[in-house]
Amino acid sequence: MYKKLTAEVLGTFWLVFGGCGSAIFAAAYPELGIGFTGVALAFGLTVLTMAYAVGGISGGHFNPAVSIGLATAGRFPAAHLLPYIVAQLAGAVLAAAALYVIATGKAGFEAGGFAANGYGEHSPDGYSMLAALVIETILTAFFLIVILGVTHGRAPTGFAPIAIGLALVLIHLISIPVTNTSVNPARSTSQALFADGWALGQLWLFWVAPILGAVIGASIWKSFGEND
Amino acid sequence: MYKKLTAEVLGTFWLVFGGCGSAIFAAAYPELGIGFTGVALAFGLTVLTMAYAVGGISGGHFNPAVSIGLATAGRFPAAHLLPYIVAQLAGAVLAAAALYVIATGKAGFEAGGFAANGYGEHSPDGYSMLAALVIETILTAFFLIVILGVTHGRAPTGFAPIAIGLALVLIHLISIPVTNTSVNPARSTSQALFADGWALGQLWLFWVAPILGAVIGASIWKSFGEND
Amino acid sequence: MYKKLTAEVLGTFWLVFGGCGSAIFAAAYPELGIGFTGVALAFGLTVLTMAYAVGGISGGHFNPAVSIGLATAGRFPAAHLLPYIVAQLAGAVLAAAALYVIATGKAGFEAGGFAANGYGEHSPDGYSMLAALVIETILTAFFLIVILGVTHGRAPTGFAPIAIGLALVLIHLISIPVTNTSVNPARSTSQALFADGWALGQLWLFWVAPILGAVIGASIWKSFGEND
Amino acid sequence: MYKKLTAEVLGTFWLVFGGCGSAIFAAAYPELGIGFTGVALAFGLTVLTMAYAVGGISGGHFNPAVSIGLATAGRFPAAHLLPYIVAQLAGAVLAAAALYVIATGKAGFEAGGFAANGYGEHSPDGYSMLAALVIETILTAFFLIVILGVTHGRAPTGFAPIAIGLALVLIHLISIPVTNTSVNPARSTSQALFADGWALGQLWLFWVAPILGAVIGASIWKSFGEND
Repeated sequence: MYKKLTAEVLGTFWLVFGGCGSAIFAAAYPELGIGFTGVALAFGLTVLTMAYAVGGISGGHFNPAVSIGLATAGRFPAAHLLPYIVAQLAGAVLAAAALYVIATGKAGFEAGGFAANGYGEHSPDGYSMLAALVIETILTAFFLIVILGVTHGRAPTGFAPIAIGLALVLIHLISIPVTNTSVNPARSTSQALFADGWALGQLWLFWVAPILGAVIGASIWKSFGEND
Repeated sequence: MYKKLTAEVLGTFWLVFGGCGSAIFAAAYPELGIGFTGVALAFGLTVLTMAYAVGGISGGHFNPAVSIGLATAGRFPAAHLLPYIVAQLAGAVLAAAALYVIATGKAGFEAGGFAANGYGEHSPDGYSMLAALVIETILTAFFLIVILGVTHGRAPTGFAPIAIGLALVLIHLISIPVTNTSVNPARSTSQALFADGWALGQLWLFWVAPILGAVIGASIWKSFGEND
Repeated sequence: MYKKLTAEVLGTFWLVFGGCGSAIFAAAYPELGIGFTGVALAFGLTVLTMAYAVGGISGGHFNPAVSIGLATAGRFPAAHLLPYIVAQLAGAVLAAAALYVIATGKAGFEAGGFAANGYGEHSPDGYSMLAALVIETILTAFFLIVILGVTHGRAPTGFAPIAIGLALVLIHLISIPVTNTSVNPARSTSQALFADGWALGQLWLFWVAPILGAVIGASIWKSFGEND
Repeated sequence: MYKKLTAEVLGTFWLVFGGCGSAIFAAAYPELGIGFTGVALAFGLTVLTMAYAVGGISGGHFNPAVSIGLATAGRFPAAHLLPYIVAQLAGAVLAAAALYVIATGKAGFEAGGFAANGYGEHSPDGYSMLAALVIETILTAFFLIVILGVTHGRAPTGFAPIAIGLALVLIHLISIPVTNTSVNPARSTSQALFADGWALGQLWLFWVAPILGAVIGASIWKSFGEND
């Protein structure tokens, strides 16, 4: 279990450090910045790379919603949920702290929204709470369908980290303007702790919708894909 | 058959939700938007991810032109064409409806062209009906050649979703300015239902050209690639 | 041989239609255009996709310099060079003609440089003839080293089209501003036929440098990589 | 050993020629330039392509920090460190010289910073020396964790160059604005030799932090991932 939890700490650290770090440092650099496409790529590549590196140890969840979805589908023991989620939160918060240290190395830095998720007036493009709920739920549901499908015995071996990582790229390509994209409560929590106060007030949605979506996605998958 | 059709509904939902959704929400965001490159990537990644997830169940067509092309090549039973196409249309329309709900969560939203396909004055860059017919036919023909080639026994195992998904990325990189890129009548139909009236009037082309291209591509493949 | 040549015609058609097509239609679209990154991706994905689709038939060269380099390394019979190169030129010219037909479907179209390669005053960023010679030679040499290395028995099976396609992406990311990137005499010839007159006058360099580079790359590879 | 060192020379040449070359020639081209996203992609693809091509010969390090990290983890004989690092430096400096020759083919070229790494006033976005130290150390540590994890027997075969190459893409997406991204002392040294004088004065950090990070990453990996 120690090895598994270490893997989850490191993987979630990498997810937040790479995904949110690219957003904070590189997205809006004048002329040459990476924009939402680069941030989407960064989030997905954190999961692709660490799923290859440590997926064989912990399963490579790096996300409480994924762990809950896998438990819903009967692929992960419910008794391991709590330690996994604690490890994921620890990795995410450590990464946010490291990002904060680096970011303060630039004169005039203010945390502002950091890379927190938001809706309504804190949605990057002004989308409502309902829109945020719907899109986070749908995206996490499909994220779980992709994860459960590509790690099923029916799928070709070895490609799961590619499909799962690129699913996360895709999810960010769609939804950064709506919610700044969560589908991962650990990622949202870590940023809300360092962002301006509104982020903690909106954090509930980025636990509720991803977990709801994960349960829905896992249930859909079980209804047609799990058994032959 | 129930499992296969569910897989096609979900896959085509994901294709339209992800591809058209990225276009509607994220393409033109000021400064940081994903542009046509990001939209191209999103369309391709929907197919890459769901082909890995459910390709082993339904074959992962998610597109009436693909089903028709596979039937032309003798790889898919013609008797399954109708239920597959109905499932693909259902998935696509559900996705368009979900996008509409989310899009209306932003103040001042107007559907306009949604992410519909068009030619002439509704081509993004003003290309004629003939140009639209030619490019959609050629692109769908090559899409089928790639699909038939990479799923042939001669090709290495497991890589088909990568090649097919990235073929769709490529197709969008070429042709978004010409027709907003269809090569998929289900995708076109779903958007035309929610867009301004002109889109339904131009929808015929995005059934005719992709299907024509699929039949041509499958016929070319059969003439040189299918048998050793 | 008929099957092999058909595969080379189709593959080179796709390379020129996709790579040069994305440059002509989509690179410079206002605000949302795909830029050089998108064009680089398009060129590479044409080779990635068709190498998976028909690589098992013809080897998937799609490029006279590649055929010559493979012959230099002893991997391809020199007697097949002429028919392969003719097929590659045929595919490339057919693709350029198709692009021309589509491009004229936009009011006010003028061929200009089409997507031809150039140096000196026709280099996109004003690089000299010597710079063009050096960069095209180096890039084609490494292209051949990658091709020969990844198709060697020592490399893992099935990944060659990914490595080769992404090598072509990389080559374009480096050199579009210098020469508009050739490394492929068929691609250069097809565009020069439809571009303004200067392109034919500079075409010699885009035969000499890629072939020179291919021979150098194949020779380097043979000196250390071919035999264990 | 001759074969291994040749492979390291070529691989590191390609890393610097492709990664730094894309930055020098293509990043800031008006309107169509590839920006930091394109440069990140280029760096990663140099490693992905050459790791497939010659990884079976030399291991495909192309980076002194990687060689030192692998030695720390017991995967590489310490006695080979010196010749490997000399080969890597030779390849990197040759590539920088080739880039210099090509770059001078454009009228008005001045080396300026070339593609050197820097901190403080030479950080692209003005990050402090401490921020540079922290981010280079963390990124190299995770680079080694990914490398050691994906080349472990537990990980699926054949995918290592994809994971490692895309890890380098990710690392650049995060950190170009902070230090211009090193994680590789050979790459940093080669550019500092041709850049303005400040680059040599700051070069120490781009040896210290990557090597420190590599040792930390390898140590973390050994503590939980190496043995079952």
